Amino acid sequence: MNRITQIFNIKYPIIQGGMIWCSGWRLASAVSNAGGLGLIGSGSMDSDLLTEHIRKCRVATDKPFGVNIPLIFNHADEFIKIVIDEKVPVVFTSAGNPAKYTELLKSHVIKVAHVVANTKSAQKCEASGVDAIVAEGFEAGGHNGKEETTTMVLIPMITKSVSIPVIAAGGIASGKAMAAAFCLGAEGVQIGSRFAASKESSAHELFKNKIIESGDGDTFLTLKDLIAVRLLKNKFFEQIQQKEKECASKEELLELLGTGRSRQGMFEGDTENGELEIGQVAALINKIETAGEIVREIVEEYSVIKKLLF
Amino acid sequence: MNRITQIFNIKYPIIQGGMIWCSGWRLASAVSNAGGLGLIGSGSMDSDLLTEHIRKCRVATDKPFGVNIPLIFNHADEFIKIVIDEKVPVVFTSAGNPAKYTELLKSHVIKVAHVVANTKSAQKCEASGVDAIVAEGFEAGGHNGKEETTTMVLIPMITKSVSIPVIAAGGIASGKAMAAAFCLGAEGVQIGSRFAASKESSAHELFKNKIIESGDGDTFLTLKDLIAVRLLKNKFFEQIQQKEKECASKEELLELLGTGRSRQGMFEGDTENGELEIGQVAALINKIETAGEIVREIVEEYSVIKKLLF
Repeated sequence: MNRITQIFNIKYPIIQGGMIWCSGWRLASAVSNAGGLGLIGSGSMDSDLLTEHIRKCRVATDKPFGVNIPLIFNHADEFIKIVIDEKVPVVFTSAGNPAKYTELLKSHVIKVAHVVANTKSAQKCEASGVDAIVAEGFEAGGHNGKEETTTMVLIPMITKSVSIPVIAAGGIASGKAMAAAFCLGAEGVQIGSRFAASKESSAHELFKNKIIESGDGDTFLTLKDLIAVRLLKNKFFEQIQQKEKECASKEELLELLGTGRSRQGMFEGDTENGELEIGQVAALINKIETAGEIVREIVEEYSVIKKLLF
Repeated sequence: MNRITQIFNIKYPIIQGGMIWCSGWRLASAVSNAGGLGLIGSGSMDSDLLTEHIRKCRVATDKPFGVNIPLIFNHADEFIKIVIDEKVPVVFTSAGNPAKYTELLKSHVIKVAHVVANTKSAQKCEASGVDAIVAEGFEAGGHNGKEETTTMVLIPMITKSVSIPVIAAGGIASGKAMAAAFCLGAEGVQIGSRFAASKESSAHELFKNKIIESGDGDTFLTLKDLIAVRLLKNKFFEQIQQKEKECASKEELLELLGTGRSRQGMFEGDTENGELEIGQVAALINKIETAGEIVREIVEEYSVIKKLLF
């Protein structure tokens, strides 16, 4: 029991990252049923699909669950309205200003967390009244902060600068790493990559296989001139690297990126030409398991580490 | 007591990073006297100076100490001969092939550790017979691996791939971070930045002040086309960034770099035009203390974390 389990009314302080193309109602409900906090990733959904996933999630679990809403999207307003109407108990916001919706969400008794990658944003979060902060390090998959601060340095930095509880994200896929994050001052962990490769993840099987087969050095933070994103290396990634080496303009990079690249890779399984967002920790993930097995293994390993070490 | 304290015959598994311009005999002997392992950083020395520092270190402490030797330098052969002749008990090698000198050093009863940033190099170390591995994450100061793997991911990756003990480096400057590294599987920590800012460090006062004044986002990994190095942001750093933005050639970057940049910055105190190598964790370092105080504080915080958390 700590502040994170109390705030979100969950058994274990393990939060499943709300990921595009991977985390629909199946994954979110499975994580919540296992005692963690499942999040529906709305970033790859439209309003109807989000509503459908929320309703299905509610049927599939009587435990708390949440929705992740990236605030930079045009439809953020609409999504906020949906989570309020559907009485979703928890909202994780990211990529935008935490001050914009926090008060509104909290007036509807919704618990709010916001994702940050630096001290200034963390302090803004606290001032805007969020219940908790997700501090996400450089090793995390997908979009990433421009300071490039790693989880090891970011967590003590953020916990020192705010008094609300901090959830560590980036590089965490095991009980060992959860224990490490707690040593650094976190009270919860957010795990993306390992759940992206779970049975209940809606990612394409070929993407899941790529995750569990990947190893040391197989992800890289790229596209820093557009919006930094950590990708699994493939043909598409090599094309970006080549363009950047040639000092391509933003326009040329945008043209290469095109539209629907992440859907193509992560959902449709074109693992060579699609965009595959995943964390560095993919190198440590070696099998596809159910979300329930993942939560149990992490909790078990965490308690073994405690006994072994201390 | 663990394998690292046993191998190096030290009280605490805290190793002071062997840093250019910062770690001469004063710092190394102070760390060893405090129960850690002090390392003389030979990277900014010539043969006579190295010999002088080894001899002075031996007078200043009766505890084990070591020398760090970057193997890419032309004078590596000569430095290896010096440490053997001077009967230095410990050698940390880096930036090169661990197979080259390990057998020779060990035949002179010298304990050997080698610095790596990926699995393949770690396995090469084990095969070549080193006693321990330093696994250094992306957040570390100075030169850095091209995989950009962070300490959080690197340590479990390396400990899984070898059976010899692993010393974690990168992002570690506190008892909290030491506890985190141990959760991840490390049996020792190597700390650079915090000792670079210690009273006994031979760094210029102005550089030390820059370290303790720096904050979130103030370091960055740059010069990736030449040899990746993490620097404190200053005028020189901005010049590199500008050149890279303009897609400058390697020759142009080398010309900008010139010679003696690190001496200029770290030793002579030209903190705007010099090269200031330091880790991300500098943001968490706020005062200049003696090496003894640093070791004591880390050990104390480590035991508090143990009691608090577990």
